[in-house]
Amino acid sequence: MPKGELEFIRRIRPLLNRGGDAAVLGVGDDMAVLPFPADRLLLSTDMIMDGVDFRSEQHSWRQIGYKAMAINLSDCAAMAVRPVAALCALSLQDTLSMDDALEIMSGVRDCSTKFACPIVGGDTNSWSAPTVVCITVAAEADGDRPPVRRGGARAGDSLCLSGPVGGSLLARHLTPEPRIETALAINRRLEPHAMIDISDGLAVDLWHMLDESGCGALLDETALTPMIHPDAHRQAARDGVSPREHALHDGEDFELLIALPPRVTDEQCRGLGLTRIGRCTDETGCRLKTEDGARIDIERRGWEHFR
Amino acid sequence: MPKGELEFIRRIRPLLNRGGDAAVLGVGDDMAVLPFPADRLLLSTDMIMDGVDFRSEQHSWRQIGYKAMAINLSDCAAMAVRPVAALCALSLQDTLSMDDALEIMSGVRDCSTKFACPIVGGDTNSWSAPTVVCITVAAEADGDRPPVRRGGARAGDSLCLSGPVGGSLLARHLTPEPRIETALAINRRLEPHAMIDISDGLAVDLWHMLDESGCGALLDETALTPMIHPDAHRQAARDGVSPREHALHDGEDFELLIALPPRVTDEQCRGLGLTRIGRCTDETGCRLKTEDGARIDIERRGWEHFR
Repeated sequence: MPKGELEFIRRIRPLLNRGGDAAVLGVGDDMAVLPFPADRLLLSTDMIMDGVDFRSEQHSWRQIGYKAMAINLSDCAAMAVRPVAALCALSLQDTLSMDDALEIMSGVRDCSTKFACPIVGGDTNSWSAPTVVCITVAAEADGDRPPVRRGGARAGDSLCLSGPVGGSLLARHLTPEPRIETALAINRRLEPHAMIDISDGLAVDLWHMLDESGCGALLDETALTPMIHPDAHRQAARDGVSPREHALHDGEDFELLIALPPRVTDEQCRGLGLTRIGRCTDETGCRLKTEDGARIDIERRGWEHFR
Repeated sequence: MPKGELEFIRRIRPLLNRGGDAAVLGVGDDMAVLPFPADRLLLSTDMIMDGVDFRSEQHSWRQIGYKAMAINLSDCAAMAVRPVAALCALSLQDTLSMDDALEIMSGVRDCSTKFACPIVGGDTNSWSAPTVVCITVAAEADGDRPPVRRGGARAGDSLCLSGPVGGSLLARHLTPEPRIETALAINRRLEPHAMIDISDGLAVDLWHMLDESGCGALLDETALTPMIHPDAHRQAARDGVSPREHALHDGEDFELLIALPPRVTDEQCRGLGLTRIGRCTDETGCRLKTEDGARIDIERRGWEHFR
């Protein structure tokens, strides 16, 4: 049987829905939206592991704790909701000292304090294998604004980015800045059709949005080029892969990708620090209009677990 | 610096409260109680790891998924609240097949369906280290009954068990039966002062309750003896440790330990399948009155991670 995280999620959706369960509302979006109470509770969980999402021989435990919390808060940004509280489950490698363990929690706390999302519980375990940090965040919708899903993009929508992408593995992946305030402002002022945070890569996260929305996209290289992060150029100089490829397929940028209705002006976008990089199309698929006018397919390629 | 899960939790409580965060409400109880909305949302997380909480060469992936969900639902029982929804984060060892991964989720689903707690989201990862399953459960209070905390026991309260304990590692630890219906009935009919589920062991979980409540306890061996599980006797025959020691210090029974006000009668207890095993005392500490009338100290010993 083929493996892959996406195939796994595709297969567990019907599995979890079978047998008359209440509808599985969350699988496939950034957070679960619970029909309780009053449609306002959202939940999200993200697990990071030593040697995969961080390297304890290279990164400090405090940075690692910060990252664990920040990537969960980025899911709140992706839905344009306010984090309320978090839980932190740990499986500590038994070589860690008490100080190391407390440093992890200090990093978690640094980030949770910054974004006003207190840690209200957790679970502490230890073992001989590498350390695992799993954070769960509960969030509430922002006033009367509904959470922004992945699946609402329509042909004609503008596709915008909240910041430059690519090359995050050089260092930025450790200190992501969850775009919560930007996301809340977008939701209040621009009535976005769809939004996602770029965790697995611009291309594959755009594909996720298109799959859920049932439309296609055409990115514009002229608009995309200024959104290639300097780190993507640095990385390209090292590995010979083009900066554009890094911008499209690197993971862990944690910027927002937003589908905005056509009525939203460039000025409104700029006012929130957003940059248009393309638009949604009737034609399915995902393409890039290059600077010389050619149209090339954008591969559904990025970070995928369980391959 | 000394290690140990309890020391770690003791140290992170002030850490997480520092800097003007909202009060940390949940650390130290079975679930977090959020002041949102209307004091009715509870959250809990529990992580289990291959080689520690289960052995994949011995147990089926479906059993493992079931256990991961069941131990979280046992925390709902401990607070006498109704589970509403759950998230499942996985770190799958890369030797697992898609079928194995789906079997885990089938086990999770079996348990979530049985207890009407749908899986609404999660996170799928893989790596070369052993498999980790981390479940988070959201729950709601039962009507107008408040969640039952650990910290409300008072001198004079009866200490009761929902079922026999000890020797669960022989097999029962894989198929715990969260005592949710019993817990809800206790909360509605008996107005319990405190409750906890026995995950780390009767002695140490009783100690947790006493620490939070600020009283002591005296268990009665004559009452305890019938509550020693047949598996504790089997285990004793194998390892030479007494059945009573197994009953006091083995983990993963997931029965409830309840402190009930003195007015509750034996008949009321029996009506809910509860057995009195002792009472709370003014004198702090935790003792056992043996069948020959001696009083011996009960050690604060059970399962503890991160030692």
